[in-house]
Amino acid sequence: MSQSACQYARDHGPAFLEQLQAFLLLPSISTLPEHTPDVLAAAQWLVRDCEAIGLEHVQLLETAGHPVVYADWLHAQGKPTVLVYGHYDVQPVDPVAQWDTPPFEPTLKGEDLFARGASDDKGQVFAHLKAAEALLKAEGSLPVNLKFIIEGEEEIGSAHLEPTLIDNAALLQADVCLISDSNILAPDRPALSYGLRGLVYAEIAVQGPSHDLHSGRYGGGVHNPLQALCEIVAQLHDAHGRVTVPGFYDDVRTPSVEEKDELAALGHRDEDFLAETGAPATWGEAGFSTLERLGTRPTLELHGIRGGFTGEGAKTVIPASCTAKVSMRLVPHQSCQEVGQRFKAYVLSIAPPTVKVTVHLMQSGDPVLIDREHGAVRAAATAYEQSFGAKPLFTLDGGSIPVVEQLQKAFDLPVVLMGLGLPDDQLHAPNEKFHLPNFYNGIDCSIRFLQLMADQ
Amino acid sequence: MSQSACQYARDHGPAFLEQLQAFLLLPSISTLPEHTPDVLAAAQWLVRDCEAIGLEHVQLLETAGHPVVYADWLHAQGKPTVLVYGHYDVQPVDPVAQWDTPPFEPTLKGEDLFARGASDDKGQVFAHLKAAEALLKAEGSLPVNLKFIIEGEEEIGSAHLEPTLIDNAALLQADVCLISDSNILAPDRPALSYGLRGLVYAEIAVQGPSHDLHSGRYGGGVHNPLQALCEIVAQLHDAHGRVTVPGFYDDVRTPSVEEKDELAALGHRDEDFLAETGAPATWGEAGFSTLERLGTRPTLELHGIRGGFTGEGAKTVIPASCTAKVSMRLVPHQSCQEVGQRFKAYVLSIAPPTVKVTVHLMQSGDPVLIDREHGAVRAAATAYEQSFGAKPLFTLDGGSIPVVEQLQKAFDLPVVLMGLGLPDDQLHAPNEKFHLPNFYNGIDCSIRFLQLMADQ
Repeated sequence: MSQSACQYARDHGPAFLEQLQAFLLLPSISTLPEHTPDVLAAAQWLVRDCEAIGLEHVQLLETAGHPVVYADWLHAQGKPTVLVYGHYDVQPVDPVAQWDTPPFEPTLKGEDLFARGASDDKGQVFAHLKAAEALLKAEGSLPVNLKFIIEGEEEIGSAHLEPTLIDNAALLQADVCLISDSNILAPDRPALSYGLRGLVYAEIAVQGPSHDLHSGRYGGGVHNPLQALCEIVAQLHDAHGRVTVPGFYDDVRTPSVEEKDELAALGHRDEDFLAETGAPATWGEAGFSTLERLGTRPTLELHGIRGGFTGEGAKTVIPASCTAKVSMRLVPHQSCQEVGQRFKAYVLSIAPPTVKVTVHLMQSGDPVLIDREHGAVRAAATAYEQSFGAKPLFTLDGGSIPVVEQLQKAFDLPVVLMGLGLPDDQLHAPNEKFHLPNFYNGIDCSIRFLQLMADQ
Repeated sequence: MSQSACQYARDHGPAFLEQLQAFLLLPSISTLPEHTPDVLAAAQWLVRDCEAIGLEHVQLLETAGHPVVYADWLHAQGKPTVLVYGHYDVQPVDPVAQWDTPPFEPTLKGEDLFARGASDDKGQVFAHLKAAEALLKAEGSLPVNLKFIIEGEEEIGSAHLEPTLIDNAALLQADVCLISDSNILAPDRPALSYGLRGLVYAEIAVQGPSHDLHSGRYGGGVHNPLQALCEIVAQLHDAHGRVTVPGFYDDVRTPSVEEKDELAALGHRDEDFLAETGAPATWGEAGFSTLERLGTRPTLELHGIRGGFTGEGAKTVIPASCTAKVSMRLVPHQSCQEVGQRFKAYVLSIAPPTVKVTVHLMQSGDPVLIDREHGAVRAAATAYEQSFGAKPLFTLDGGSIPVVEQLQKAFDLPVVLMGLGLPDDQLHAPNEKFHLPNFYNGIDCSIRFLQLMADQ
């Protein structure tokens, strides 16, 4: 039975690629207001594709921002319902001069398709649409009930998704969620993420004098807010790279021996990591390997400091105020609520009395841990092995996908993270690409996964 | 004899004010290319005024930037030559919305004239032009030889002045230099600065990875350059507010007991200082009073940190690189050359091996100490007392006026700093103003100073 759908997909590979190229022509950059019509055009393009595939109830769910594309096929009585999530919006293309080919003119080079959104996430979500098409066209039906939600605001924080999920709770009811918006390790090394780090994003504001002061006249008389801020930020890590917020590590889960062995089996080499990042040396929490620090340990990073003079040349200002943007990546079983409060209390406790310090918690999300023994995860592992020719490795992902936590929270759904990208896909950067063998194997893998789910 | 020129100045006060208002109409903002014609118009306005006064050899000395206005009167045979320096360029007016009246529509309120440049420096230099006019019109001659150089680039660092001084060394030869581009303490509390702090301006650059990284994927694996920079900057002061650069204080001159008594006599109160700055507390090098720290001690200030994300909202970037702008104010007998090198060596010595750190020394100038016993300084003190009705206090100024060091270096000239501004003149800020009694007393003081100089 699987043969016919998989065969159909193979036969129609060139047509699917042409369709993907058409989808990638649309510059659906969600963060830029001037591209709002393009974002809508991409949503409408998906609506037409869903209808052509034979999906039903195809519609745009309106939000306070860009709409969510919904489509389903619900005729597999007694079978589980799979909810596929993806996004059709893309990142901006700056610096555009660094692209070798225009970002919205999809260009084939060897086995790679270059375009903004090729891997993140148009190519990955499109693989599941084409899997549904292959099943419906080749076999006239799907083995399970299937729902798609494809949003247009993932690249700007999915701020309007959660209310949409809640407002449409009945429509979106499902047994398992399937997301392809991440990476495998190599074309022949599939991987299933079973953990995602959570996030606390905060801004520290320091106010000193009531107005900017001239450093010649006032320097040495008042505590420079920028200096005070640097002094605070410098105290957020100790000399061993550990985060100094009291209790920060209290709830951190220790990976099992099996997980540690798996991590070691990934074959990470610091030389490769340094070549990939260009950093002069690795750095981080003492007592852990680089890979452990990236996946299993929480971290704290500084993203920017605003205030004072940063233009060309010299200006001798003591700024009245300044801010620092800081984020923490959390791992199971840390709570973003609790870590946020601990962070705030600690920063205020080390703030000197010579300036006024406030901490604003801007965003947060709990870490996610996926049950590796869940039937859906096992089905995904089997499908990966059949389609990619290798057992998938179980990995912990350092990043955060807010929707995963939102879906878990809204529907208490198990989530399968079936990444189809590669580590060098240049997400959010110039020359983003999608590796076409991953696209074709991904369609095959999706078909097999849906068929395996029918037996759950 | 003094009577007639001083009387002339008093009689023509209203006309002089009208002329100053016309001068202030010209938006001669030197840093903004779109105002280049206005800067030139201000120079040409001065040329016409110098000619009307009866000065000679009136000309624009061309530079690689805005021109220098030159004028002289050299018929006082056997008498000293006084070189008056001032500048006709002004600061930008941002934030313009905070001005109560338009910055280039000079507006009288009580005894204050509000306009950009009113105090810094158009009003102050104009007082000396009007003193020359009063002497020439009332008495037909000047008591000393007089030269004016009025530049158009003081607000952008006087970068082209030094070559102009050197190229025109013969033309500018003089016995003493007179500058009014600073403050007295109050309308009835004149002050003579006898020291100016020097400056070293530097940029610290930190390079980590070769490109920006996503903190979810790489956080905890590389040393975040912004964090490394904060850790370096936080080590530039110790817990007692002392600069930690080794040898930084080695050459610092200890003020005499007399100077300390004078400082105490200024009647500084920290409450007033806090009210003036709006800072929650004073801060600085332990073991010294606020006033000592502002004038007699060297300081180190941070002016801005560039790199990473400082826009609205949240972005989780680890920037590839970042920079900090830092300046040090020096006091006699520190050498800017030596302090710059010590700073650079120290920063490099504390740079961690996990990032690449470079230090770029951008600008520097040595501190200036003026001989209080010089005849010209005593003449200025007498003139102040006669015109302002009080003996001037001798003060140490925290700021740096690069031209003073340039003049000392180029001509080995004694410099008299005859400030006519007030501490609340809002230099470089919205609602800049000039206190008109200071303008009129300043003209009187300039006349008396030139007459006293005839007897030197």
